[in-house]
Amino acid sequence: MSTVAFIGLGNMGGPMALNLIKAGFTVKVFDLVPAAMQTLAEQGALTATSACGAAAGADIVVTMLPAGKHVRSLYVTDDTSKGLIDVVAPGTLLIDCSTIDADSARFVAQHAANKGLEFIDAPVSGGTAGAAAGTLTFICGGSDTAFEQAQDALNAMGGNIFHAGGPGAGQVAKICNNMLLSVLMVATSESLQMGIDHGLDPKVLSEIMKVSSGGNWTLDKYNPCPDVMESVPSSNDYQGGFMVDLMVKDLGLSQEAALLSNSSTPMGALARSLYVNHAKQGNGKRDFSSIFEQFAQSEQIKK
Amino acid sequence: MSTVAFIGLGNMGGPMALNLIKAGFTVKVFDLVPAAMQTLAEQGALTATSACGAAAGADIVVTMLPAGKHVRSLYVTDDTSKGLIDVVAPGTLLIDCSTIDADSARFVAQHAANKGLEFIDAPVSGGTAGAAAGTLTFICGGSDTAFEQAQDALNAMGGNIFHAGGPGAGQVAKICNNMLLSVLMVATSESLQMGIDHGLDPKVLSEIMKVSSGGNWTLDKYNPCPDVMESVPSSNDYQGGFMVDLMVKDLGLSQEAALLSNSSTPMGALARSLYVNHAKQGNGKRDFSSIFEQFAQSEQIKK
Amino acid sequence: MSTVAFIGLGNMGGPMALNLIKAGFTVKVFDLVPAAMQTLAEQGALTATSACGAAAGADIVVTMLPAGKHVRSLYVTDDTSKGLIDVVAPGTLLIDCSTIDADSARFVAQHAANKGLEFIDAPVSGGTAGAAAGTLTFICGGSDTAFEQAQDALNAMGGNIFHAGGPGAGQVAKICNNMLLSVLMVATSESLQMGIDHGLDPKVLSEIMKVSSGGNWTLDKYNPCPDVMESVPSSNDYQGGFMVDLMVKDLGLSQEAALLSNSSTPMGALARSLYVNHAKQGNGKRDFSSIFEQFAQSEQIKK
Amino acid sequence: MSTVAFIGLGNMGGPMALNLIKAGFTVKVFDLVPAAMQTLAEQGALTATSACGAAAGADIVVTMLPAGKHVRSLYVTDDTSKGLIDVVAPGTLLIDCSTIDADSARFVAQHAANKGLEFIDAPVSGGTAGAAAGTLTFICGGSDTAFEQAQDALNAMGGNIFHAGGPGAGQVAKICNNMLLSVLMVATSESLQMGIDHGLDPKVLSEIMKVSSGGNWTLDKYNPCPDVMESVPSSNDYQGGFMVDLMVKDLGLSQEAALLSNSSTPMGALARSLYVNHAKQGNGKRDFSSIFEQFAQSEQIKK
Repeated sequence: MSTVAFIGLGNMGGPMALNLIKAGFTVKVFDLVPAAMQTLAEQGALTATSACGAAAGADIVVTMLPAGKHVRSLYVTDDTSKGLIDVVAPGTLLIDCSTIDADSARFVAQHAANKGLEFIDAPVSGGTAGAAAGTLTFICGGSDTAFEQAQDALNAMGGNIFHAGGPGAGQVAKICNNMLLSVLMVATSESLQMGIDHGLDPKVLSEIMKVSSGGNWTLDKYNPCPDVMESVPSSNDYQGGFMVDLMVKDLGLSQEAALLSNSSTPMGALARSLYVNHAKQGNGKRDFSSIFEQFAQSEQIKK
Repeated sequence: MSTVAFIGLGNMGGPMALNLIKAGFTVKVFDLVPAAMQTLAEQGALTATSACGAAAGADIVVTMLPAGKHVRSLYVTDDTSKGLIDVVAPGTLLIDCSTIDADSARFVAQHAANKGLEFIDAPVSGGTAGAAAGTLTFICGGSDTAFEQAQDALNAMGGNIFHAGGPGAGQVAKICNNMLLSVLMVATSESLQMGIDHGLDPKVLSEIMKVSSGGNWTLDKYNPCPDVMESVPSSNDYQGGFMVDLMVKDLGLSQEAALLSNSSTPMGALARSLYVNHAKQGNGKRDFSSIFEQFAQSEQIKK
Repeated sequence: MSTVAFIGLGNMGGPMALNLIKAGFTVKVFDLVPAAMQTLAEQGALTATSACGAAAGADIVVTMLPAGKHVRSLYVTDDTSKGLIDVVAPGTLLIDCSTIDADSARFVAQHAANKGLEFIDAPVSGGTAGAAAGTLTFICGGSDTAFEQAQDALNAMGGNIFHAGGPGAGQVAKICNNMLLSVLMVATSESLQMGIDHGLDPKVLSEIMKVSSGGNWTLDKYNPCPDVMESVPSSNDYQGGFMVDLMVKDLGLSQEAALLSNSSTPMGALARSLYVNHAKQGNGKRDFSSIFEQFAQSEQIKK
Repeated sequence: MSTVAFIGLGNMGGPMALNLIKAGFTVKVFDLVPAAMQTLAEQGALTATSACGAAAGADIVVTMLPAGKHVRSLYVTDDTSKGLIDVVAPGTLLIDCSTIDADSARFVAQHAANKGLEFIDAPVSGGTAGAAAGTLTFICGGSDTAFEQAQDALNAMGGNIFHAGGPGAGQVAKICNNMLLSVLMVATSESLQMGIDHGLDPKVLSEIMKVSSGGNWTLDKYNPCPDVMESVPSSNDYQGGFMVDLMVKDLGLSQEAALLSNSSTPMGALARSLYVNHAKQGNGKRDFSSIFEQFAQSEQIKK
């Protein structure tokens, strides 16, 4: 089995690296937080004293970082330090699993290509539960060759592996999907609440729409109205799940992408405004289906 | 088998009445257009010279009319004429299959109840193809008893029969569903186009989102981007299907319902504005997935 | 001076009737609340035991009622009672000052015309302060003749008297104006807050935009950001002024009007959604400039 | 009089530089297009063979460039060349009149400050007509000292000179204003058209709203409905004025700013979507008040 350098051992990165170890990879880790490295070391990881130190000599580098600026400055040399692409061995495969702006992904891919290196942007979905269980979804951008090479490592960490296209396409596809998801959530919420405001039972209405032309993922898996489905955040005071703050981040990335390509996304833009206001009202740490509460609490006011 | 009076023999009503005949019901029809009655008569229908004439003595009355005002004035007496509820025999079941405002449905149901009659609002979806094939979906509002009684007749005309709740609930549920559908269509269109604007293949992006959290009915059955799916309107220059003008009508009903219940539907309201403008640009007779064209034709403008 | 029947003596109607008395008109009043009539009687009004009783024999009838259904049933005969237009003397001028849907205004105007009577829809703006001071704005719909005849009475109650067009035009013009106002308020709020989020002083930004192409009534008279202007609701915890609930009512009328004429009003529709949600969060009785708070409380989050 | 280096002699920069010459400044110009320099040389300007050549030795540097990336790379050194701030004399005042993102303005201001230089961001409004007439509006960001120093040069080119705050504040204030303007234009258009759809005369409705709470700059100076005002683009087939493409650019900058500060701008975001779609339909070179056409051409469809 090959050697993987894993950089960024947070809530997502930690369990992902662990799954690589379990799958038999030799894993060399780095994180700015020593305790995060220590946890992995106890599971069999080698540790490094810098990101470049971890990457030097690895067959595959996997990174999991907060934002585009971190990814750019880690991979590409700047005023203060060398970049990963300057220190890795020829033939090393670079895989960035962060969710970042497409422009940064393309920037790093281009610099990697200039050095003869393959780079894949591979943002994930599935949350910390998926990271621990090894069932993450990866949406990848990069060449066919690189995508092929990455299979073993990605399969060790995830379930569904998609190839969306060339460099940056993984980020674009993920952000298109999440923008669409945010609209599904808002629109399903307002439709269910309008039904409730007219005296309908949200369970019955959900059942009808689920098998009709209003059918969508939120009705199937993640109904935002409390007590319609069991074991979803809406039935648990919107705890757990996917935080509003993370949806706000993804919607910000979607609008950044829309500006870059001169695209018009009226629904996605409106969803961002509604989610930003929702976050400002103190809901940032609650599940994103809590947007339902913006529409509820209606008294039925008849003319 | 029982006797059904069928009033309103347009593109939908005609084939629906025919399916009742085929199922063995005695059907007595009325329409303001004599030729429409003649066609049914040739298939075995009895004809009447007025709506009341058709309804008198029937076990079940089925109506299929354009708008709430027609339904109100047909069922309930006004200055100029008697209403159906004044002339039908005790025990006659009244079924209105028109798509109208919930208020009108409740108005007629209340007047029927005052006379001891059961009334069901049972708007359909499935279009003229579904009407001909007898595979329409009915979404019903009314009492359990009435819903039970209506089964045989509705099964003769349709496939899925839903019971959404009490009087008016059929109209409300249908309009909630169609409002949600309109948002799915717009949001899927803008997401696909943003992907295209960034160089992604809409087929690949559709495949990814379909099985991810962006999954919805339009990606499954009715992709709005040309040449992604076969045999859908988008791959046939947006001919056939469900006309923009009809979506505009349904979105108008949804906003009427939202005003009545003091509900807030930001996504549905925005979809109505976009569809009204789309219709005004000459697209009223095209399929509603043609809203995709509002987002396409983008040149990719990079900063 | 002529005799005026005044029906509806609420917070607005009471002081309006008083100003007619002060101007020398003989005023005969009716209200369902006896105490409201008593107050006016002490100022010299005659009282009646019914609306029709007040109207019979008057030269001018003025009505000030909550909603379209009240205006319809007061003026036009229905199952239970005669309408005003059945009891007034030939030549009586009918003036409705309620803010109602245009359709109801046209309905009454048409029935009045059928009886040879002139009817003016004359909704007001200016609030209770304007009603007391006699400085209300009237926006009138009706014939030139009727508008001419109404001058003396309207001048006794208001400052600006506009003639918007034929029957219903007063309601339409008022609702167009108030829909536009709601958008000005939301857009000014979000623009000011975006400036604040970037470290600008809202006073300075307001001064600049006021004299630039962003200039609008809210920047001139009613700045929504606290402590930019003195003596406006935003500098008094959004007390007083024009209540959110009343703006929600007017935005509902605007959307009803838009549905009736198949008009597209994306900004007005969005403003309604935002104001409905704002009201549901407990702000219904606060001034409508409090929508500013939906955008405030932002921490400045930099990438 | 002092010496001004002027870099960027396009449709705006050319006439601005000429006004500096007329006011008695010694002006040294540079542009990538030799013909643009030649025109100014004929009016008395000195010419340079590079931007740095023009700036070296000047008391004031004025730049007028298309976008943030041009401003960054001109002022600040990068891999390929020195920046202006490396070559100008100590005490030189730097004034950038481009309309760019606030972040780029702050970036350059910071680098200038690091070298002990004062930098002002001073975006303009008023168009090519204002540039020629010397009546431009400048909205400035920078220190009080720098603002004071810039007065003579700015007065030679413009009429209104505002000081919005520290570095970047000029860009932010301009973009807040133009975002607000775009909403005023759309909302005024939809309100006027709704009035027209109900049979009102747009001239009458405009007169009423202009002096009421719907009053705003577009009703005062720039009515979007054809033939309401003379000498505005709407009465000249939307020729001239401020192009849709430029409004799309400014709305893009506004949304970039909103993302940066985590601000919510639902109206501005919606206006951007509507303007992008309008541009895609072939209206990019027409005046921005042509958005009115998105709402017009309505047939009055009554229920």
